[in-house]
Amino acid sequence: MKKERVVIIGSGPAGLAAALYTARAQLNPVVIVGNQLGGQAAITHEIENYPGFPGGLSGPDLVEKMKEHAESFGATFTYDLVESVDFSSGSPYTVKTLMDEYSADSVIVTIGADPRKLGIPGENEGVGKGVSYCGTCDGFFFRGKDIVVVGGGDSALEEAIFLTRFANSVTIIHRREELRAGVQLQKRALNNEKISFIWNTVIDKVNFGDDGQVNGVTLNNVETGEVTEHPTEGVFIFIGHVPNSPIFGDQLAMNERGYIITDERMRTSVPGVFAAGEIQDEIWRQVATSVGQGTSAAMTAIHWLEANEETLQPLDETAEPAGD
Amino acid sequence: MKKERVVIIGSGPAGLAAALYTARAQLNPVVIVGNQLGGQAAITHEIENYPGFPGGLSGPDLVEKMKEHAESFGATFTYDLVESVDFSSGSPYTVKTLMDEYSADSVIVTIGADPRKLGIPGENEGVGKGVSYCGTCDGFFFRGKDIVVVGGGDSALEEAIFLTRFANSVTIIHRREELRAGVQLQKRALNNEKISFIWNTVIDKVNFGDDGQVNGVTLNNVETGEVTEHPTEGVFIFIGHVPNSPIFGDQLAMNERGYIITDERMRTSVPGVFAAGEIQDEIWRQVATSVGQGTSAAMTAIHWLEANEETLQPLDETAEPAGD
Repeated sequence: MKKERVVIIGSGPAGLAAALYTARAQLNPVVIVGNQLGGQAAITHEIENYPGFPGGLSGPDLVEKMKEHAESFGATFTYDLVESVDFSSGSPYTVKTLMDEYSADSVIVTIGADPRKLGIPGENEGVGKGVSYCGTCDGFFFRGKDIVVVGGGDSALEEAIFLTRFANSVTIIHRREELRAGVQLQKRALNNEKISFIWNTVIDKVNFGDDGQVNGVTLNNVETGEVTEHPTEGVFIFIGHVPNSPIFGDQLAMNERGYIITDERMRTSVPGVFAAGEIQDEIWRQVATSVGQGTSAAMTAIHWLEANEETLQPLDETAEPAGD
Repeated sequence: MKKERVVIIGSGPAGLAAALYTARAQLNPVVIVGNQLGGQAAITHEIENYPGFPGGLSGPDLVEKMKEHAESFGATFTYDLVESVDFSSGSPYTVKTLMDEYSADSVIVTIGADPRKLGIPGENEGVGKGVSYCGTCDGFFFRGKDIVVVGGGDSALEEAIFLTRFANSVTIIHRREELRAGVQLQKRALNNEKISFIWNTVIDKVNFGDDGQVNGVTLNNVETGEVTEHPTEGVFIFIGHVPNSPIFGDQLAMNERGYIITDERMRTSVPGVFAAGEIQDEIWRQVATSVGQGTSAAMTAIHWLEANEETLQPLDETAEPAGD
């Protein structure tokens, strides 16, 4: 059992910021990296909108910088996966991973959410080559292009309208004949001359040109079964997100969609357990906002540890051999 | 009268992030810089805790990068000061500056707050050389050093306790004989063996060594009038902040301390007017958190402009001469 003041679950921008702040406060945080160091940021081809990097940089580059930054103050990154947690009997909390078991006075949960995928051929390969799950992030790359949007909810229509700032045309592909989105949003989308609709239709496949970039989608009309080719340079998929919260079971209060509920100081329902980034954020989902939230969660954790210092567990001195 | 979709008042990290996001959404924001491009960040000697810059960088360097970043997407910076605003008759709003007058469909207020100063000789010159107003930001630079803290409220004691992580000793200098801070905090500070107190005393002057760094303070006992020299390498001043909100009068809802009240989407009491950064944040006050808030304010502004597009003012085409 490894004893730690702070264990951070997840290594996206929120976790990396929390690691930097808790490390700089001399708390030697341990970051349990998860499936993908850097989370969604790491699989982002180019990040143009994290302030301070004119010209942008690749997702992996930004993640590497943030990791190095946190490490320079004493954060440790372990390439491991959380299997279960036990928040039931107060701090210190147990965090069980594939390879270890931690006793942590405080835990910062930054395990993220993933965009829901269509699960069709070409979708995964197309990320960074025309397939995107974020209009705010990627719209700028599609200036003057013809793109498609998949989905029929509020966020699909909001993103479609936003994307008309950049795209030459936006075609919304929806598997039903009516939209789930609110009436006002529907009206704005239907009145927008850059937006058109293809109803009762799903995408079977994303197709690529010789240059490796997306150049079209194969459509399937679910009413008639007719299969057609539709040329496009961009495929924006807005069919929801899936928060990575199942490992917490009912140990943290969550909303009906499985997002962890936090207060304005990033506290969860369990004292000493904090959350930041997309596991508790259904609105912003930006590197910059997750970094801000991770910073806040770390600052609250630091204060919480100080206020509870009399009841913290004694730590093993890692620099010394254990003795007997 | 210059017609704009978005006017940003203030150019600290929140304003710079808002400029980047609104520029990237093709809104050509105008940033009214204010007294100091970059705000407090610009007068920060070294910023070690903005994620993504291992090794840190100077405040002016970070500000310059963020400005260049926003400009690369079309933001305009004008070195001008806001004199008054008129939010009384709905959007578009009037923003009057020393040199111009703007009609703005939306306004993002990021005008900041300033730490309250002692107003003593050596204080201003000492910033970056030993005088600081932020323990979270600068504590790490004072590892193993003997420092003083000025103030007697909650934040002074919280920061003093936090600073014991780094400093060899922390001497709290307070002009009264008792503390305003809460009892629990007082107890923790009084029991902390690194913390000692000098009561009924003010600092007359900050003193410097031959190397230009702070090496002491001149103390003045307000009861006895006795003047003594106290050697120290750090002077942390926590006597409150002053939000730069007076120019808004009673046009925006504020709390009793003069901070603008925002909701979770960074909306103020006036539709189409948003706020971010320290003008509405009494808790975090970090570059990373202000950047996150500026990003959020910009995203809400973008959505608000889209939802109200039918009532926005026609813009002048700036690329063309006006004609007649």
